[in-house]
Amino acid sequence: MDDFWSGVGVDLHLEPDSADGRRAGLERALRDAVRDGRLAPGTRLPATRRLATDLGVSRGTAKAAYDQLVAEGYLTARQGSGTRVAALPPSPETESPRSDARARAPRFDLRPGSPDVGAFPAAAWLRALRRAIASAPSLAYDYGDPRGRIELRTALSGYLGRARGVLAPPERIVVTSGYIQGLALLTRVLDGSTVAMEDPGLPFHRDVVRHNGGTVVPVPVDARGVRAQELGEAAAVVVTPAHQYPTGVTLHPERRRALTDWARARGGLIVEDDYDGEFRYDRQPVGALQGMAPGQVVYLGTASKTLGPALRLGWMVLPPHLVDAVADAKLHSDHHTETIGQLALAELIDSHAYDRHVRACRLRYRRRRDQLLHRLGAHRGVRGIAAGLHALIDVPDEAEVLARAEAAGLAVGALGTHWHAPAPAPDRAQGLVVGYGTPRERTYPEALEVLAEVLGTGR
Amino acid sequence: MDDFWSGVGVDLHLEPDSADGRRAGLERALRDAVRDGRLAPGTRLPATRRLATDLGVSRGTAKAAYDQLVAEGYLTARQGSGTRVAALPPSPETESPRSDARARAPRFDLRPGSPDVGAFPAAAWLRALRRAIASAPSLAYDYGDPRGRIELRTALSGYLGRARGVLAPPERIVVTSGYIQGLALLTRVLDGSTVAMEDPGLPFHRDVVRHNGGTVVPVPVDARGVRAQELGEAAAVVVTPAHQYPTGVTLHPERRRALTDWARARGGLIVEDDYDGEFRYDRQPVGALQGMAPGQVVYLGTASKTLGPALRLGWMVLPPHLVDAVADAKLHSDHHTETIGQLALAELIDSHAYDRHVRACRLRYRRRRDQLLHRLGAHRGVRGIAAGLHALIDVPDEAEVLARAEAAGLAVGALGTHWHAPAPAPDRAQGLVVGYGTPRERTYPEALEVLAEVLGTGR
Repeated sequence: MDDFWSGVGVDLHLEPDSADGRRAGLERALRDAVRDGRLAPGTRLPATRRLATDLGVSRGTAKAAYDQLVAEGYLTARQGSGTRVAALPPSPETESPRSDARARAPRFDLRPGSPDVGAFPAAAWLRALRRAIASAPSLAYDYGDPRGRIELRTALSGYLGRARGVLAPPERIVVTSGYIQGLALLTRVLDGSTVAMEDPGLPFHRDVVRHNGGTVVPVPVDARGVRAQELGEAAAVVVTPAHQYPTGVTLHPERRRALTDWARARGGLIVEDDYDGEFRYDRQPVGALQGMAPGQVVYLGTASKTLGPALRLGWMVLPPHLVDAVADAKLHSDHHTETIGQLALAELIDSHAYDRHVRACRLRYRRRRDQLLHRLGAHRGVRGIAAGLHALIDVPDEAEVLARAEAAGLAVGALGTHWHAPAPAPDRAQGLVVGYGTPRERTYPEALEVLAEVLGTGR
Repeated sequence: MDDFWSGVGVDLHLEPDSADGRRAGLERALRDAVRDGRLAPGTRLPATRRLATDLGVSRGTAKAAYDQLVAEGYLTARQGSGTRVAALPPSPETESPRSDARARAPRFDLRPGSPDVGAFPAAAWLRALRRAIASAPSLAYDYGDPRGRIELRTALSGYLGRARGVLAPPERIVVTSGYIQGLALLTRVLDGSTVAMEDPGLPFHRDVVRHNGGTVVPVPVDARGVRAQELGEAAAVVVTPAHQYPTGVTLHPERRRALTDWARARGGLIVEDDYDGEFRYDRQPVGALQGMAPGQVVYLGTASKTLGPALRLGWMVLPPHLVDAVADAKLHSDHHTETIGQLALAELIDSHAYDRHVRACRLRYRRRRDQLLHRLGAHRGVRGIAAGLHALIDVPDEAEVLARAEAAGLAVGALGTHWHAPAPAPDRAQGLVVGYGTPRERTYPEALEVLAEVLGTGR
């Protein structure tokens, strides 16, 4: 009867594997054979007694394997007709629908958006994780509050007040899995409303708003920042007051005022994306807009630039009337953010290790900023360099400079991809968006050299 | 001029605090005074020279503090009119919008839905985190693939094939932040479609589908599981084949067949919630439905029951045509799931520590199940006990038994809350849903005693 199995090309003489034993191996072989069609639908299988004899297993094992596959629907067993192969639904194509070939990494990476991930404080984070796990009560491993752990909200309340001038009582904070989630949750709470977004601004953020049901309208940015006087009928506006992305402008006090006036007069909501507010180099950071209008502003911050994007840790500070709605949206999106990372971040903040790390990063990024200025001294028009991890560099012809960059193995951002309208306007500014936070420390000087060459300011 | 400040009730004589020095303290005091109205809008402030003298700080410090608050919009400075207090928008009510008083924890907790979080393998998890951090390349701390880390998808591919009979090539897996997120993402990809859900079933899951734009219709469950023949026009059906929640029924092979027939004939999608598939006590676990119809089934699994809900780690195995859409929804929801936990879980699976932990849990939960059966031996109608972490216990009158339970300090689930229709039908089954995984190990025996008393089978 061994002939039966070899006749259909199925080898059941499997070595028992330590993980799950002989029976599991037998079942797997049968399952695979049904799936791939070697055992055709309707085929009557040998009786368990025979199967047992042929394979040298007990009849109980053989029967258990058949029973299992009957329970799972691969086989059918009917009194008088024996055990037969069931008909499965047609199987799907097996190729991957998306190519796994990744874009080849550039030799030099000055694209904006990421910090120097080589500076991730792995040892400090591991220590914080250890302390968090050592002191967490058992219940911390259960489902938690959709707003996040009270330990982290309390730590953030102090930190944000101290470092960013944010008025953030713990009960007004919702911990998120990063900025994108905060923007997504808020858009859904706003339920299809019109959201004004800075032009130029990050296209991905516009996609996030649209993907979550919002309607995006542009609001232009000039040398004083977002033109708040042009907000009109939008229900909300998303702004980057500390360091506009990508132009690097700090919002002028007059515009801060115009924004809050608009919010008050129209009942509009200001969404403050404070993505790099901790990094300001030549003077003290400009405090968050939220501090002067906590009833009109949703403040969004994140550990992505200070620690690393991989942690997916962010926070929202909300006006009172939005707390419940956002917590509810969070509950129905992913219940709450992963707990142990929250406890570790609370540890890091409470022990002041977070402040020390931010200060160390600020010094390092400032040095990088200075190197950039020094190296590109010959190039006029390096803008937005008072803060943050990127600079905007004026160029006469983006396309031409980008082509030179690509030829030199240098990846860099372009202002042109940040406008709302896809068709280029003739009078539009052109520029490179240079993320000087991105490269590893050791590759930065060489990347700068290449950038200088590409800009035609090479030595 | 000190009189000015004491006249408005503002104490600027602050001790320098080590964190941010004298100037920051001065700014904070001014900011607070503007916010809470002690410094009324329009009030002209003393000149910086005076402020400096009064406080014993340098004029530079005094000027920097004023400049900072002008930049932030709390003060205005105009040539000839000095520095004045700006008018802020009206501040919001400061009370918390949601009471922080938590429901008092019950003395005995036999509510379903959570594993024994006292059994969270903290030491093993910390070891896995340490190994993950030790071996992670720097780039792992940057933004990642919305589908999740390839290390984890590869580990899951092997584990799910071995343990659950799931056909799961890594490129068909999307790592999620738990089951709820998987269900939410899928509902949004289905874009307002009708989703059939088991009746009875978990109300929270219906809420999640509705919250994300889906329309929920009931499909009844009987002694063979979900009545697949009654699915009709739904675009998708969410099922719990291994151990129906809350009835505990294992889906009958005939119904498995009917489900996949329906999916094939109508182009419907089967969403398999395999929430406790690892825990089956009297025989080998019934393999996942996905294995026999991988083109029609979305398989959803999670570490919530095996490790702990706090980790927020789950996975989806998708038919090829849905991978891109779900990854896109994930990208626009929260970019990707936190990375270090993903790497740690991959470590745990690859080292077989995960299998060992699941086996140890299975033994412990089986022992609990046996204790339950033993203790309630006199009570007929303990159902759904072949698997999982909960049992359904028939009772003649839910309301009465629940009242007795509450009086005894015992929290327990009720079948009545799981039906789709709120109004009770006269012929509806009644029962308690008892989560025997929930209590800590040391409190379980006493909780069982109380349950027995409440059911009238006390000794």
